Amino acid sequence: MSLVVQKYGGTSVGDPERIRRVAQRVVETAEGGDAVCVVVSAMGHTTDELIELAAQVSRDPHPREMDMLLTAGERISMALLSMAINDLGHNAVSFTGSQAGIVTDTTHGKAKIVEVRSARVREALEEGKIAIVAGFQGVSTARDVTTLGRGGSDTTAVAMAAALEADVCEIYTDVDGVYTADPRLVPGARKLRQVSFEEMLDLSANGAGVLALRSVEYARTHGVKLHVRSSFKPDEGTWVVKEEDVLEQAIVSGIAHDTGEAKVTIRAVPDRPGVAGRTFRPLAEAGINVDMIVQNTSVAGLADISFTLPESDLARAEPILEQLARAIDAEGFTCEREIAKVSVVGAGMRSNPGVAAAIFEALADEGINIEIISTSSIRVSCVVPARDAERAVNVIHERLRLADNVLLQADGV
Amino acid sequence: MSLVVQKYGGTSVGDPERIRRVAQRVVETAEGGDAVCVVVSAMGHTTDELIELAAQVSRDPHPREMDMLLTAGERISMALLSMAINDLGHNAVSFTGSQAGIVTDTTHGKAKIVEVRSARVREALEEGKIAIVAGFQGVSTARDVTTLGRGGSDTTAVAMAAALEADVCEIYTDVDGVYTADPRLVPGARKLRQVSFEEMLDLSANGAGVLALRSVEYARTHGVKLHVRSSFKPDEGTWVVKEEDVLEQAIVSGIAHDTGEAKVTIRAVPDRPGVAGRTFRPLAEAGINVDMIVQNTSVAGLADISFTLPESDLARAEPILEQLARAIDAEGFTCEREIAKVSVVGAGMRSNPGVAAAIFEALADEGINIEIISTSSIRVSCVVPARDAERAVNVIHERLRLADNVLLQADGV
Repeated sequence: MSLVVQKYGGTSVGDPERIRRVAQRVVETAEGGDAVCVVVSAMGHTTDELIELAAQVSRDPHPREMDMLLTAGERISMALLSMAINDLGHNAVSFTGSQAGIVTDTTHGKAKIVEVRSARVREALEEGKIAIVAGFQGVSTARDVTTLGRGGSDTTAVAMAAALEADVCEIYTDVDGVYTADPRLVPGARKLRQVSFEEMLDLSANGAGVLALRSVEYARTHGVKLHVRSSFKPDEGTWVVKEEDVLEQAIVSGIAHDTGEAKVTIRAVPDRPGVAGRTFRPLAEAGINVDMIVQNTSVAGLADISFTLPESDLARAEPILEQLARAIDAEGFTCEREIAKVSVVGAGMRSNPGVAAAIFEALADEGINIEIISTSSIRVSCVVPARDAERAVNVIHERLRLADNVLLQADGV
Repeated sequence: MSLVVQKYGGTSVGDPERIRRVAQRVVETAEGGDAVCVVVSAMGHTTDELIELAAQVSRDPHPREMDMLLTAGERISMALLSMAINDLGHNAVSFTGSQAGIVTDTTHGKAKIVEVRSARVREALEEGKIAIVAGFQGVSTARDVTTLGRGGSDTTAVAMAAALEADVCEIYTDVDGVYTADPRLVPGARKLRQVSFEEMLDLSANGAGVLALRSVEYARTHGVKLHVRSSFKPDEGTWVVKEEDVLEQAIVSGIAHDTGEAKVTIRAVPDRPGVAGRTFRPLAEAGINVDMIVQNTSVAGLADISFTLPESDLARAEPILEQLARAIDAEGFTCEREIAKVSVVGAGMRSNPGVAAAIFEALADEGINIEIISTSSIRVSCVVPARDAERAVNVIHERLRLADNVLLQADGV
């Protein structure tokens, strides 16, 4: 008998009809002989509705109380799913984050899991019950209710899978796997059978919404096999596994894009040692995640420094940048919101240096201007104008022949 | 410094605007120098909406999961109230039933409180915080989430007040106190300044909706002073106190009415010893609460037995009654739904036997037929046709001059 952790997101349990369908699916797994622990998100727009309610009673909702409020969402969905499964003649029992032993630090709104005390869930499974666990929530070391932040339910699922030593952690979603590019943008995008943790980390960090970054990190650290698949179709999805377990390593696995970043350029910075450190220290201290830093060649002792940061942090960053520009004697700074980051990810790029050149050529042939480039051993990212993002993804996808699955490790470009 | 427990019902926190108003009221109490523990129900129709959701996923929702579901309601309202109070510059902190130490037995849907471990709430109060506690919910001795059943939030408030040794438990509601009769039926109904626990028990048990019966029982047992008052107006409401603390004991305190009962008559029952026991044992075993039993004089060895029971239990009672009628050789049974029970309650009736006669005369003068009568030392109840209920309450109210507050203990009728 295997032990399976299944995670269903908000869309999968968006209404009573869908909850009954998920119940059916869970029961089929259980009847196949597996022990099943289900992690579930809040129904569809519940979280947004609760946030809206909070805004109506407080200008600045208290973080502890916000967590108390939001955790009502999974409580509702998990109880309903549990009832629906009981109605199908199986014994299901739901657990809050606290009851499931998801112990976190005390950072309300984006708590980190510090321990999973899974005894109670394990006991339920050993009694032949189906355990339904609330995603996204935990209890802090100070005994307060906490939430794990964006994508928290994925992290709960992986953490439960690790603690229970599950054979697999299945992430059910409204797409049926990880694609070579966003299928809404690229009609010929191909579903991947497998992808390595490292590649998935880079895809998640660069805009692929299918898996939350933290859950992939947790899965890699704890060696939890992930299977991303559709809530609505029975087909196999995409397995996320250790690099050495990937059977056919393609040079390039996929293309992610992210339109949620903004670009900042600090102009005419006196090119003195230590200036980069002075620039990024205050942003880091404000908790702003800066990415893709480039500094052009100095002309007459003055250089431009450009970087990207989440668009949502821009309002917070601007006063810091103003002060900064004065402090380092720069001419000033500019912000550009209408940009997109297009990232090509593939473990095989380590031994195939030609990929980057192929990407740049494809964009140049199409007349798309590259504003910033950054690379890692398994990734090439380009910042392009936002209006060109869809075209950029498509031409790269075509140039690298990702629809055909031909660029295997041995081939070269 | 006094310690006040305040309970706000679903109507009082029905929308964000009302929640902000309650927050204001709580803050005013705190600024008056009192330590405040607030017990709060779910917002307005939240509970009904959750029950409706449950009906859409299950024909027969599992009781444990139903409790898990419903407790989301208070979690939302208490977090919102807490945020609103924090917004007013006070430090509020919310506690689930479990966090507040409301320990219950394991009867899902109508659990009984077995213990209150109030240390965590007490600690918050001692730190100068306003404690917001979820009404209606607890945690069972088996560590499962439970609910206390109808009027459960009143019971939570009284239990917290008892455990914290509060000076008063204020029950805020959409009426401003306990009246001599339902003011919607009797325009001249008068608000009572005081009522004894014993009277309030009889009023609550017989249809007065303002306080849940169990909360009054709990308050009497633990000597918790109750103050029923309006969420919307600052005026004093009604104090529920020990009989010896009632300052001006009226002969009659009030009239309650209840249209939620049905009348059953078992016809032509052979008048043998033990037949009453055989009749009511199976109903009791099915958990059906029978009230107002009367047996008329036996004619030719056959007697009719009539009684009332909650209309909502009738469907469950009917098959039991059918079997029963056969077993005791009765002719059969009839059920009547269109009845009302009108109850007159007053501690002073103990020493004023004329009240019952005055009630019967008032109804007779108005041509209202009395179908069943039952009395206790401080109560007279009459079953009348449902269509006559409003008229019956009014004529009794007038005959006993309840609007004028003249019938004090010493007067006699």
